[in-house]
Amino acid sequence: MCRWMAYSGQSIFLEDLLFTAKHNLIDQSMCSKSAETPTNGDGFGVGWYGSATQPGVFRSIRPAWNDFNLRDLATHINSPLFMAHVRATSQATVQETNCHPFRYKNWLFVHNGEVFEIERLRRDLLLAVDPGLFPYILGSTDSEVMFFLALTFGLEENPLLGLAKMAGFVEETAKKKGIDEALWMTVGVSDGTSLYAARYASDGDAPTLFHSRDMEAVCHLNPLLRERFGANARVIVSEPIGVFPDIWQEVPQNSSLHVKDVCFEINPFIPAK
Amino acid sequence: MCRWMAYSGQSIFLEDLLFTAKHNLIDQSMCSKSAETPTNGDGFGVGWYGSATQPGVFRSIRPAWNDFNLRDLATHINSPLFMAHVRATSQATVQETNCHPFRYKNWLFVHNGEVFEIERLRRDLLLAVDPGLFPYILGSTDSEVMFFLALTFGLEENPLLGLAKMAGFVEETAKKKGIDEALWMTVGVSDGTSLYAARYASDGDAPTLFHSRDMEAVCHLNPLLRERFGANARVIVSEPIGVFPDIWQEVPQNSSLHVKDVCFEINPFIPAK
Amino acid sequence: MCRWMAYSGQSIFLEDLLFTAKHNLIDQSMCSKSAETPTNGDGFGVGWYGSATQPGVFRSIRPAWNDFNLRDLATHINSPLFMAHVRATSQATVQETNCHPFRYKNWLFVHNGEVFEIERLRRDLLLAVDPGLFPYILGSTDSEVMFFLALTFGLEENPLLGLAKMAGFVEETAKKKGIDEALWMTVGVSDGTSLYAARYASDGDAPTLFHSRDMEAVCHLNPLLRERFGANARVIVSEPIGVFPDIWQEVPQNSSLHVKDVCFEINPFIPAK
Amino acid sequence: MCRWMAYSGQSIFLEDLLFTAKHNLIDQSMCSKSAETPTNGDGFGVGWYGSATQPGVFRSIRPAWNDFNLRDLATHINSPLFMAHVRATSQATVQETNCHPFRYKNWLFVHNGEVFEIERLRRDLLLAVDPGLFPYILGSTDSEVMFFLALTFGLEENPLLGLAKMAGFVEETAKKKGIDEALWMTVGVSDGTSLYAARYASDGDAPTLFHSRDMEAVCHLNPLLRERFGANARVIVSEPIGVFPDIWQEVPQNSSLHVKDVCFEINPFIPAK
Repeated sequence: MCRWMAYSGQSIFLEDLLFTAKHNLIDQSMCSKSAETPTNGDGFGVGWYGSATQPGVFRSIRPAWNDFNLRDLATHINSPLFMAHVRATSQATVQETNCHPFRYKNWLFVHNGEVFEIERLRRDLLLAVDPGLFPYILGSTDSEVMFFLALTFGLEENPLLGLAKMAGFVEETAKKKGIDEALWMTVGVSDGTSLYAARYASDGDAPTLFHSRDMEAVCHLNPLLRERFGANARVIVSEPIGVFPDIWQEVPQNSSLHVKDVCFEINPFIPAK
Repeated sequence: MCRWMAYSGQSIFLEDLLFTAKHNLIDQSMCSKSAETPTNGDGFGVGWYGSATQPGVFRSIRPAWNDFNLRDLATHINSPLFMAHVRATSQATVQETNCHPFRYKNWLFVHNGEVFEIERLRRDLLLAVDPGLFPYILGSTDSEVMFFLALTFGLEENPLLGLAKMAGFVEETAKKKGIDEALWMTVGVSDGTSLYAARYASDGDAPTLFHSRDMEAVCHLNPLLRERFGANARVIVSEPIGVFPDIWQEVPQNSSLHVKDVCFEINPFIPAK
Repeated sequence: MCRWMAYSGQSIFLEDLLFTAKHNLIDQSMCSKSAETPTNGDGFGVGWYGSATQPGVFRSIRPAWNDFNLRDLATHINSPLFMAHVRATSQATVQETNCHPFRYKNWLFVHNGEVFEIERLRRDLLLAVDPGLFPYILGSTDSEVMFFLALTFGLEENPLLGLAKMAGFVEETAKKKGIDEALWMTVGVSDGTSLYAARYASDGDAPTLFHSRDMEAVCHLNPLLRERFGANARVIVSEPIGVFPDIWQEVPQNSSLHVKDVCFEINPFIPAK
Repeated sequence: MCRWMAYSGQSIFLEDLLFTAKHNLIDQSMCSKSAETPTNGDGFGVGWYGSATQPGVFRSIRPAWNDFNLRDLATHINSPLFMAHVRATSQATVQETNCHPFRYKNWLFVHNGEVFEIERLRRDLLLAVDPGLFPYILGSTDSEVMFFLALTFGLEENPLLGLAKMAGFVEETAKKKGIDEALWMTVGVSDGTSLYAARYASDGDAPTLFHSRDMEAVCHLNPLLRERFGANARVIVSEPIGVFPDIWQEVPQNSSLHVKDVCFEINPFIPAK
């Protein structure tokens, strides 16, 4: 289990959500409310869209709570669309290439959850990745393979369909090995313009995911930023940040989100072939 | 708050206590039972006496739970006397020179606790360190200064007196600044032959410290090692390891321990001038 | 020996000088032309003035040449005034608190060189640091102590005088210990508005330092940035970057620089009391 | 290009060769005599056979020259058969899982060299790895894939044949992609009893490899260890260590070595099908 968050709105400093809000993601790296993995200290990462062609990524194997570089960067980097992730792993090694977000061209990807018995499936999943994309896989997580499968299945053209086909393929591959319920995930994806998310589990019991109800809700996170957030600001989180639970709406099981300017859509998420 | 342990007995592998025992120190790095700091993920260290003149020290800024080098080393290094420490800090930077144990010649030192308002006292404490010892201070913790003060006050000749004078000096220096109750500590010290420990707080409420009751108790930690531990094996811990609480005896407040072969002494610990 | 560079001008991306120019500072981290220390792989740091109150600092113990975070940050962070430093040490531990630039409030400081026999002088130098500044010393380098001595001696009011008094004090302290020629340095200092530098050695043989001749010279480093650099751009370097040696003018021994907008002054640097 | 060394003989401390000898491997991490990559600062590793079932491995992303843990461990760990490796990479990320030696069960493997255009071949090579071995590949180097291909082709039964089949397979796979001369390597392999090495390049111009001439030669590295080395001590190195060039004999191009007690064999190394 991990914890992640994503922001879309007018440009704010990363620190405005990462450090200033109460029970923020950095706090969650040490003391999440999850009963299973209260500690998410196996590295972290932030990805943001800025002035360069590619989004920026800063990843570290240190626990987010004791990394001073992160504090400085969060104070200086502002962005209208960013993601952050704190990791808890019992499997893949703690190394930067296993920290989220993963990046390909202008795309960023974060994941919380697990492909069950990935060690039995990893080779088959890797083989299905487009050979042209294969060299871009640098780490050893299930998450990165999920991202490159989704890219293989058309994420760049239709992100939610790419994710649905990835989910379908993972489940199908697992079934062939006798694993009935293989996928357990919340994911966040962006091309720098839209923010997509999905909450899905093969057994219908995916990790938690929440979105901010509306712009007023976001302002409750930091009233001083009312002007800065902008009218269409949205935050998506694994676990509520801030002190006002009412500002958060749980994303239903097996659903997808699409956020872009005034657009905010929730739809069923159904694995596809 | 941190967590530490020390072992004295016949030679065993570090892993026998660090990894094999239930609720071991490595587990405590992620999930200590302390209400205040359940996570001790700000670096760790082990120090052991072996074949070389100096004790060996291995320290890392990573959380102990995700460091694979530690597992390998604990499997290969055996020692009749070793200490290990997992760190939680809200103050001094996470860097190797701030990880315990600290070493000077054949001496090792671990600490759990705090000098209150150390930032107001640090300069005065440093000035009191013997100028000949001063260059050996490499980090920025209160703990390391406590060690070098104790060395200044004669730790090498009389370890428990050196610690008592250090405690007295810290309290006296603090009082001059209007800080009435400055010291809060458990410490472990060794020269490779004896193992010393102290539990002390200016306000009488020091962090917990336990010692194994007897050799039978130690064998409960890992019955397969009965032969290996030897008749005089002792373990000192911040927090019980293993699953049998009965094997542990709490060290009384304001007490010191001295362990060496058959010798096992508990005495009052009183700050000295 | 280390290598550093500083830029003052219109806002550019850090990468424009750190990575794009030929034989840039990152290349110098692996292959400097210095005969004594061709490798400057003991950590690095960048400091930049941006939108926040304090300058940003990013420091790492990794060699600059293999740190992927640095590449990403240099691509995304732009600044009108920044410094970068790659470190080679035979003395103080490789840890982030020993990486340059050092920061105090709005001030940044980088150093190349050495206080000879610092281990014999360090305690006396530390004692002379203003007790109010003392708690801000976090590492164990001679460089950081030099910075805090200069602050103690008025760097914030008169930077070059503060540096001159620091140099005078270091030399005087060393002489008392029988060390005749103690100081060997190039330093760079900024408050975010002005850029100061000094090249000085007690024996008149300080490490190299160069400044760009004029705005045309800077444009030779990257002609595409002609518009971006602005009319008053200046670069100061330990060792020339780029492929046109003519763009660099060596700073004379025992001299100081002051760069601010159109102002560019070179003056003798004389240790003061 | 990297640098490695291997020792087989009576048990010595790692430091005896890693640190005490002149121009040792740790010195080579900063200042190798190679014109192409004088700096091998992209991580390091040591592997040794000791009292545990598996050999021990200690790997770090730091340059070997500034890692204090390595010094301590080398002082305390002794072994009759060990390998060490310092890395220089322009390709795969600097992370512990990319540091040599690689380990599988009781086997260790080090490599210096390159599979040309590995990015075009990696997927095909990975596919040929036995699916049962596939989950043990944790990093992203060509070297680790070479090791697991050799294991797939029978390294455990016949080490030199396994390596020869690996070389043949790599060359054959490359030829299908139009790469005529794909392999360039020196490798070291051990099961804890025998030490194997090979020097081979598709174009007949492999990186350098040397073996110590005889027991007298090894004693020249450190005369104080004459008794300790034992009569059958052998050292294999990428680049001579010590100050007496006469003690080293260059391994011929396209040759293999087998060292075990009194056995010392050199044979042609010919890629196999």
